[in-house]
Amino acid sequence: MLIVQKYGGTSVGNTDRIKNVASRVAKYHAKGDKIVVVVSAMSGVTDNLIKLAKDIMPLPSERELDVLLATGEQTTIALTAIALHALGIPAVSMTGAQAGIVTDGVHTKAKIQNISPKRIHDLMNQGNVVIVAGFQGQTIEGQITTLGRGGSDLTAIALAAALKADLCQIYTDVDGVYTADPRIVSSARKLDEISYDEMLELASLGAKVMQSRSVEFAKKFGVVFEVRSSLNENPGTIVKEETKSMEGIVVRGVSLDKNQAKVTLVAVPDKPGVAARIFKAIGDANINVDMIVQNISHGSGKPATDLSFTVDKPDLLKAQKVIDGLKKEIGYGEVIATDNIGKLSIVGVGMKSHSGVAGKMFETLAREGINIDMISTSEIKISVVVDLARGEQAMKAVHAAFLPA
Amino acid sequence: MLIVQKYGGTSVGNTDRIKNVASRVAKYHAKGDKIVVVVSAMSGVTDNLIKLAKDIMPLPSERELDVLLATGEQTTIALTAIALHALGIPAVSMTGAQAGIVTDGVHTKAKIQNISPKRIHDLMNQGNVVIVAGFQGQTIEGQITTLGRGGSDLTAIALAAALKADLCQIYTDVDGVYTADPRIVSSARKLDEISYDEMLELASLGAKVMQSRSVEFAKKFGVVFEVRSSLNENPGTIVKEETKSMEGIVVRGVSLDKNQAKVTLVAVPDKPGVAARIFKAIGDANINVDMIVQNISHGSGKPATDLSFTVDKPDLLKAQKVIDGLKKEIGYGEVIATDNIGKLSIVGVGMKSHSGVAGKMFETLAREGINIDMISTSEIKISVVVDLARGEQAMKAVHAAFLPA
Repeated sequence: MLIVQKYGGTSVGNTDRIKNVASRVAKYHAKGDKIVVVVSAMSGVTDNLIKLAKDIMPLPSERELDVLLATGEQTTIALTAIALHALGIPAVSMTGAQAGIVTDGVHTKAKIQNISPKRIHDLMNQGNVVIVAGFQGQTIEGQITTLGRGGSDLTAIALAAALKADLCQIYTDVDGVYTADPRIVSSARKLDEISYDEMLELASLGAKVMQSRSVEFAKKFGVVFEVRSSLNENPGTIVKEETKSMEGIVVRGVSLDKNQAKVTLVAVPDKPGVAARIFKAIGDANINVDMIVQNISHGSGKPATDLSFTVDKPDLLKAQKVIDGLKKEIGYGEVIATDNIGKLSIVGVGMKSHSGVAGKMFETLAREGINIDMISTSEIKISVVVDLARGEQAMKAVHAAFLPA
Repeated sequence: MLIVQKYGGTSVGNTDRIKNVASRVAKYHAKGDKIVVVVSAMSGVTDNLIKLAKDIMPLPSERELDVLLATGEQTTIALTAIALHALGIPAVSMTGAQAGIVTDGVHTKAKIQNISPKRIHDLMNQGNVVIVAGFQGQTIEGQITTLGRGGSDLTAIALAAALKADLCQIYTDVDGVYTADPRIVSSARKLDEISYDEMLELASLGAKVMQSRSVEFAKKFGVVFEVRSSLNENPGTIVKEETKSMEGIVVRGVSLDKNQAKVTLVAVPDKPGVAARIFKAIGDANINVDMIVQNISHGSGKPATDLSFTVDKPDLLKAQKVIDGLKKEIGYGEVIATDNIGKLSIVGVGMKSHSGVAGKMFETLAREGINIDMISTSEIKISVVVDLARGEQAMKAVHAAFLPA
């Protein structure tokens, strides 16, 4: 088997942990597997480097930040190779550039354009474990680039695709993907498998095991990967294309996002172009909008609607300012803003073929006496906004209804 | 003017010092000079990285050590470029590989084979200060290499040669090369200029401003360089090919090496091949021999000689063991070993054309009542071994005799 294993910053946080990683790799090596190991910078290192740069200049050049940050993973690859040598296992480290990872030139958030896996194949065929620096690449002109947040996962998945690996393992500090956050829902269970689309919805909903773009990349290239813990031997969660059998399960998981805030414009004149004007202005201010709900406004003579949307909590003040600036132009009634909300979502590909899912969710919440502020649905997801104080109660109830122990 | 400036680890030891370096570069930039800056790792960084590696394995792979250590200079180049940006000066960092520094594949002590300066020239012609990582390069196959101790000086001098620079400045924490160590000889003076050969003799004699091989490289390629302080604006010492005018000065400097030990074999049979046998065995044990003196032995019936040599102090025990092992084979009388010595040297190209220099040195020591144990001379140097306890006294007296205040 050809296996790509990725270890994050916590898993390589000090020399003892790097030795643990080497021991795990050694077990696979002993079975005769060919192994490519992708590592992140040791935890804390990247933040320290950024701090050094900002000590000198608050907004350092992104090209130079990439040169600086790339040293973090380069340090780890060398130490990991040495740790394998200490166990008598032949191993060779490679920077992103050496591994043939070619990116575009968008510094600090480069996209992988191409991987030339020849050198890695050659080194593996000579019996080596190959250790590749995650998070980094090189432009065709030889500039050092980094891939942005979650970049090491992306490196691993892209390498698995380029090498046609049999298995891609993403080692992290959790056991896999759960039906809900086990710190909140004690009956939450680890999933054996999940589809890319479900994982994407969960990733964007606060179950932050992996960044969306790594999952999107895996989906695009059909890379099956496993999310599992580097702290134990438990099998993790397999993430793969949706199968017929997956549709038997209506709800795969429940998530609660406490990092949203809500803005409601009451009595917005109901004429074409108003919503476009509002969200253009919000977008121009670099504010990400998540849910948007519009409904008929009652209690007004003229045709008008109420318009609500959610943004990330830290952006709430900025969003209010934008909306205040539009008051004269648009002439809405009033603005109600609150960051006292939680967004509860249920996700599952089985929803496509099962009816009554939304009804059951709303009924469950009603039985708990929890009011629903906003509703938004997609093919495989239903999200509702509730009072923040009731969020965890709502999550537990919905989890119990759809995923009984 | 095209200037190559090199700053060592102390000069870039923290972000404030890096800002100071940038301010200095800015002054030259304001004059319209084209500048290439070569930087070392921030002081302490390289040692920390080595410690991490040795935590994992006492004798780490030299290939991986190079991957690891190269991150030190890569960090500094990015920070230095950012510090120049903060002053509004266009600057671009380059790793050894990016700067086109091609080396052989002898990891941890690679030799520079070739420098392709095209990219540096292009960047300078676009108005950039170019910041190059010292101490590192890349093999033709793309392996990361480091140049060993003093490697950043070598990078600077090699770049100055390849770029045909008008000036190469080696910034350090001393003001230049002195006639003697000013901590011992209060009347020591900074030299305005010194020849490569004199600098080489002083470098190998304990006046450790620079490693010999950087000076040798500069001599070979005719690179004139200046050793000066990064802590003030004082002019430093120009190191260049010997000129006629230099010969007017008989003694350029006086140095005292306290790190030598002496081994004497008494009554060695005076027959061919004995010395060869001894120094072959010493060499095989990787012990560096500095001075060797042989003289007729008195007080023995058979033809015999006394043979003395000096080694680095830490090698003394090892050298004694080697000699003990040869006792039966060679049949010498006895061995006397001591590390209680100092090696005092005077250096100057003017000695070639001046007679009586040795006599004056010995006479000076005699007047001080200091006994001479060994004498060794070259065309531009006279070294004597004296009792360690009298070393500084000897140095002061000789300095006063040849270089009066």
